[in-house]
Amino acid sequence: MTEILWQKVIVSVDTVDTQLIDWISYLLLEQEAQGTEVNYAYGYLENHPDLFGEMPQEISDEMLKKDTEIIGYYSEEQVIDLETLDKAIKDALSEVQYSIKLESFENENWQKNWMQHYHVQRVSRFITIAPIWEKYEGSKDEKVIRLDPGLAFGTGTHPTTQLGVQGLEMYIRGGETVLDVGTGSGILAFAAMALGAEKVDGFDLDPQAVESAIQNKDFQADIDISNVNFAVNDLLVGVTQEADLIVANILPHILVNMFEDARKLLKDDGYLLLGGIIEDQATKLEASLKEHGWKVVQKNILNGWVGYVTEKERDE
Amino acid sequence: MTEILWQKVIVSVDTVDTQLIDWISYLLLEQEAQGTEVNYAYGYLENHPDLFGEMPQEISDEMLKKDTEIIGYYSEEQVIDLETLDKAIKDALSEVQYSIKLESFENENWQKNWMQHYHVQRVSRFITIAPIWEKYEGSKDEKVIRLDPGLAFGTGTHPTTQLGVQGLEMYIRGGETVLDVGTGSGILAFAAMALGAEKVDGFDLDPQAVESAIQNKDFQADIDISNVNFAVNDLLVGVTQEADLIVANILPHILVNMFEDARKLLKDDGYLLLGGIIEDQATKLEASLKEHGWKVVQKNILNGWVGYVTEKERDE
Repeated sequence: MTEILWQKVIVSVDTVDTQLIDWISYLLLEQEAQGTEVNYAYGYLENHPDLFGEMPQEISDEMLKKDTEIIGYYSEEQVIDLETLDKAIKDALSEVQYSIKLESFENENWQKNWMQHYHVQRVSRFITIAPIWEKYEGSKDEKVIRLDPGLAFGTGTHPTTQLGVQGLEMYIRGGETVLDVGTGSGILAFAAMALGAEKVDGFDLDPQAVESAIQNKDFQADIDISNVNFAVNDLLVGVTQEADLIVANILPHILVNMFEDARKLLKDDGYLLLGGIIEDQATKLEASLKEHGWKVVQKNILNGWVGYVTEKERDE
Repeated sequence: MTEILWQKVIVSVDTVDTQLIDWISYLLLEQEAQGTEVNYAYGYLENHPDLFGEMPQEISDEMLKKDTEIIGYYSEEQVIDLETLDKAIKDALSEVQYSIKLESFENENWQKNWMQHYHVQRVSRFITIAPIWEKYEGSKDEKVIRLDPGLAFGTGTHPTTQLGVQGLEMYIRGGETVLDVGTGSGILAFAAMALGAEKVDGFDLDPQAVESAIQNKDFQADIDISNVNFAVNDLLVGVTQEADLIVANILPHILVNMFEDARKLLKDDGYLLLGGIIEDQATKLEASLKEHGWKVVQKNILNGWVGYVTEKERDE
């Protein structure tokens, strides 16, 4: 493995409040962090593995009384605006002590450490995600998605990925064409195929994510990948093929920019599935959906994250 | 078919507001109605079949401008407290015109009419509900639950039943023992088995529901019913067998009465799945869950109805 230099922004806060921690992670992701990680004091790591790009799902107040580190990972060449970050945190967390520091580190150790904590995850009754370095055979009904998430988002352990898979399982009936916006590791594209979709096109702005998704095609054993394609693309800009389903698991302020294009590409009786939204952002996102002619069919909330199933508002 | 005399309470309101209509249906169910039905003026029925015990899922303002009838069905011997109903409606709907009337009718026509509107329903990717009078063969992966819902609640078309099935699909992994509280037609018990549960015990206070659930066992072709049992019981009172999953799709003010018993019977790593809750009741129910030591894992909202997946709050 080549040694790549990475940067990390470490925000230390004097709290274990999950809402605040999620919110800081969100700020880091908004500043284009490639992934975030949360470290708690007092042996949290031993008991609750935390994962690249993933929030821990539970925190025991007993174990952790004070410091929490929220770490954002950036590539060597990314320019990080610490001042804006500082201001955003200051505006929101008036009663919490915090500090910010920037460090550089080498890639290999980080990945190794992360691999130790990433295991088989049964996401729903029928879909299981397994890292390629673990042997796992599912039961008869179980479809196993095999992933090397690399540096792309989507290991299956994050609530927003789980909500995406669940949403697909609830609304796919078989034979659908699907567009996957912000495909990351390709996880939702594979899930859609596992659930019976006919064809999936996955897009990501990040060439590294697309490379990772393409590579992940080779690892699929249970899933037909002959009709799965990945490409670098800015959301749905320039895409022309219509779809029965569009799925997008990305940050809300980016989601908004594809609502118009999605309306054009989605068939009238199709569904747009959205993820990547923390609960605090829900009201704003729902207003934006309404404004762009989308109607919420179903809203699923898991550990502070929200997944939406929406359809086109019918013209009266 | 024998001719049984039934009573219906017809509430006519000058609105097509779904929240209000749902709320009146809810009041009727609170007064022990065996089922409710909503009729809209201006040909709504022709376009949107409405079903016994089921709310229509969509209303077009264009089609319906004024009167809506919300009908509660009661057996011949039930005593209906119209005064309390009137007061409850008056308290809530200060700006809406309404009237209440009580009528008697014979059973057969009602059932016949209802059968015309009840068709195959694909509830999730893997679970489909089909009435016994329709021929339907599912695809390879699809499990078909065949039902004659009779007079029991649970045809698969109501959002709260859909949420129940979805919740089971998300949290069943195979091999679980399940308690189904308020089983109605037995639909969730069959769904649990279809999804790989090992054993299901379904309870209902209403002997007619239990009879209907037992009868429905005979119609199952895709689903192993050898470990499904139904019995008349008041919630979980007196039940002793432990379970990996407890599912209860009943009205919130009744749900609350089983939270203690459910805590005793559910294994520590098990889930309690709740349905039957309209969105307005969610805050109150969540407070009650917390008070009884339950923690919400996932909250799913579909067309104004809420399904919860909860687990035991861990003692710190």
